[in-house]
Amino acid sequence: MERTFFLVIEYDGTRFHGWQRQAGDLTVQETVEEAVFTITRERATLHGSGRTDAGVHALGQCAHFVSGTRLDPGVLVRALNAALPRDVVVRECKVAAPGFHARYDVLSKVYEYRILNRWLPAAIGRDYVWHVRPPLAEDAMETAARALAGTHDFAAFEGAGSRRESTVRTVFSAGFTRRDGLLVFSIEADGFLRYMVRNIVGTLVHAGLGRMPADSVPSILASRDRRRAGPTAPARGLFLREVKYPKGTGVC
Amino acid sequence: MERTFFLVIEYDGTRFHGWQRQAGDLTVQETVEEAVFTITRERATLHGSGRTDAGVHALGQCAHFVSGTRLDPGVLVRALNAALPRDVVVRECKVAAPGFHARYDVLSKVYEYRILNRWLPAAIGRDYVWHVRPPLAEDAMETAARALAGTHDFAAFEGAGSRRESTVRTVFSAGFTRRDGLLVFSIEADGFLRYMVRNIVGTLVHAGLGRMPADSVPSILASRDRRRAGPTAPARGLFLREVKYPKGTGVC
Repeated sequence: MERTFFLVIEYDGTRFHGWQRQAGDLTVQETVEEAVFTITRERATLHGSGRTDAGVHALGQCAHFVSGTRLDPGVLVRALNAALPRDVVVRECKVAAPGFHARYDVLSKVYEYRILNRWLPAAIGRDYVWHVRPPLAEDAMETAARALAGTHDFAAFEGAGSRRESTVRTVFSAGFTRRDGLLVFSIEADGFLRYMVRNIVGTLVHAGLGRMPADSVPSILASRDRRRAGPTAPARGLFLREVKYPKGTGVC
Repeated sequence: MERTFFLVIEYDGTRFHGWQRQAGDLTVQETVEEAVFTITRERATLHGSGRTDAGVHALGQCAHFVSGTRLDPGVLVRALNAALPRDVVVRECKVAAPGFHARYDVLSKVYEYRILNRWLPAAIGRDYVWHVRPPLAEDAMETAARALAGTHDFAAFEGAGSRRESTVRTVFSAGFTRRDGLLVFSIEADGFLRYMVRNIVGTLVHAGLGRMPADSVPSILASRDRRRAGPTAPARGLFLREVKYPKGTGVC
């Protein structure tokens, strides 16, 4: 009997060409699919909640696969971690309700972006932060961030080469906190466009550097013009922290 | 006129075969010496406070070199960081008193060892912790750690192949704290034998796993027998946090 297995996956994106399987490049999807094959001897397709770009990390990427394996989820999680390289860890494995889909059933996703704002760079943990040297005006950044909340057309923050039908998304919350000497931006939305978080962070840092007024986010959104927003922040500071699903799917 | 330049250096040891220059292997000493040459065009020898092993990190390794460069320390620190790879950062540069020696003048050193004690390994930051899966009895480890304080012969904790005249060292403090979900061991001493911290941590973890009594450290010390102590903890959890020098040397 086939079952739908749900995984929560942590990975260090440094070494990977992103989540999605592509010929010739090492990806997280392929790495986990290989581990699933090693354990179950079945060639299952792993469906992620969405892609992450090259160099982007995840604390809680979610995915599912359908398999006839009789192994219990608790056994699978141990076996998968034994088969996976050290930069990918399966944090959870559950049996989801039949028909559950890790991408189509997403309620919301939470991303986090970590900025090291001081003169000296860090050698320890350097692949997990964006080092921004000049002092950032955190008040201006928080003001700019708050204007992101709500339902907006985020076309101005979409990366080039995207082919989505709608660029309207709903941001449930967006703001900064301080943690372990880092400035941490968190954003939760019902979906994200390509490069959206990194383009938002680049724009917020522009505001923090005084290169654009703190109250310019509404006009940038209204313009739908990528050139009005700031530069794309580097991948290494970005973490997919959590993916939320409805109750009744058996995964939360 | 030649001056003695003092450096405080942070490095991620993952990629390096330790501190000390050796033919054919990439080391931190060589990497910093090359940066010094790039900036000053002088082949200066960098004298560290001591070696660190392959894979061991530093938040505050200290070193000095003698140079005729006319560059100010503030300029040097910027120029060196621009010339260094991302896993080595010069945190400070000062002009030391004439005759200062980064190794011979050490008052004490502080090492820190980070343990991730939970069932799941971590993908993020995995090169900065030792992942110990079974639950550790932290009380037993703290009890065992406290017995290290004082002046003792640490021969039982010395790695093989060492050729030191004396194996007596004075430990000023040793104990555990909890930080960011990690169990962190800190130890300050006037000097450390080869592998001493890693052999101590391996022994304390043995006590935490119930494989040896918490009060066995005094008898291990008295035995001077390496076989009585626990296994060597992996390099990746170890950080040289700080090196202390006397006042009047111009470096503190």
